Amino acid sequence: MAYPVSLKKLVDVLCRFPGIGQKTAQRLAFYLLGCSREDVIAIARAMVEAKDRLTFCVICGSLAEAESCSYCSDPGRDQSLLCVVQEPRDVLVLERTGQYRGLYHVLHGALSPLDGIGPEELKLDQLVRRVEDKNVGEVIVATNPNVEGDATAAYIAMLLKPLASRVTRIAFGLPVGGDIEYADDLTLSRSLEGRREI
Amino acid sequence: MAYPVSLKKLVDVLCRFPGIGQKTAQRLAFYLLGCSREDVIAIARAMVEAKDRLTFCVICGSLAEAESCSYCSDPGRDQSLLCVVQEPRDVLVLERTGQYRGLYHVLHGALSPLDGIGPEELKLDQLVRRVEDKNVGEVIVATNPNVEGDATAAYIAMLLKPLASRVTRIAFGLPVGGDIEYADDLTLSRSLEGRREI
Repeated sequence: MAYPVSLKKLVDVLCRFPGIGQKTAQRLAFYLLGCSREDVIAIARAMVEAKDRLTFCVICGSLAEAESCSYCSDPGRDQSLLCVVQEPRDVLVLERTGQYRGLYHVLHGALSPLDGIGPEELKLDQLVRRVEDKNVGEVIVATNPNVEGDATAAYIAMLLKPLASRVTRIAFGLPVGGDIEYADDLTLSRSLEGRREI
Repeated sequence: MAYPVSLKKLVDVLCRFPGIGQKTAQRLAFYLLGCSREDVIAIARAMVEAKDRLTFCVICGSLAEAESCSYCSDPGRDQSLLCVVQEPRDVLVLERTGQYRGLYHVLHGALSPLDGIGPEELKLDQLVRRVEDKNVGEVIVATNPNVEGDATAAYIAMLLKPLASRVTRIAFGLPVGGDIEYADDLTLSRSLEGRREI
């Protein structure tokens, strides 16, 4: 037995993180052993505190430290615009662009019949109710550009069309800074489909 | 401000780990948020416990959960053989080979005058005392194959030669499974130097 028990235990729990293997876990463990006791406690506390404090906004389902998130409780945001995303982390990515000033709606997944995820598993009822209740002018669907995301977008369009609000989907095409030569066929055909006058 | 405070704090502390950037830290944070509260506490506890329980063996300086490590307190090990390494983690790597059955001596660094690390900063006095006191037949120097490791090895040889114990250094050469075509010049010349009769 080469490892002391508590080191082995630490490496084992660090291995559970996604993308962290045995070697990286060992490197992280030795980094922790090199930290002061206060720093290790600060890291441990940040984990437990984040877990304890963060919940999902009762209105939109994004991460929040109170009943409603900072977006839903911000009166400066455009209340007539809803952006539908799959996961809470997608909200953070969209926020980073600094472009979007409307509200969000997090589905917490995408339609995937093979994985047993049907419309009931997603926050679709709440979405329909929000669009009905509030004066929502446009719903922007920002689900992932894959089979599940496409199916979910189509389903949402079907649900919301009768409510007479505009339903759009974010554009697909070449990533900025990309190279046409290396674009895959599907991206390139989506890019052609979505062409705009200049 | 896109991130809730406690999430921001968690991502910030995870960013301190070596080799973990903003994006990976965010991925790890979301993994933690997806865990049960018990699992998060288990991870946090493993960190603090490892930090609290692990110290360095008073004899050899490797990681230990008691005053002396499991190697020094194992009577089945060859007491006449000492392997000198730079860091406690090097002991674990050597143990993994399953080849070595002697004792260790951890220097906790290597000579590096530019970084202000001279012989006094390393556990060299203890090494000399161990070799003097015990009946050590051979000291295997397993410092890293770089400038600091080479200088440290030379210094140790100079220190121990008068004590009439054999001082050796682990071999340098082509890594097993490697390809001569891709070997760098220095490794290849060391490999030639260290050639053995077959």
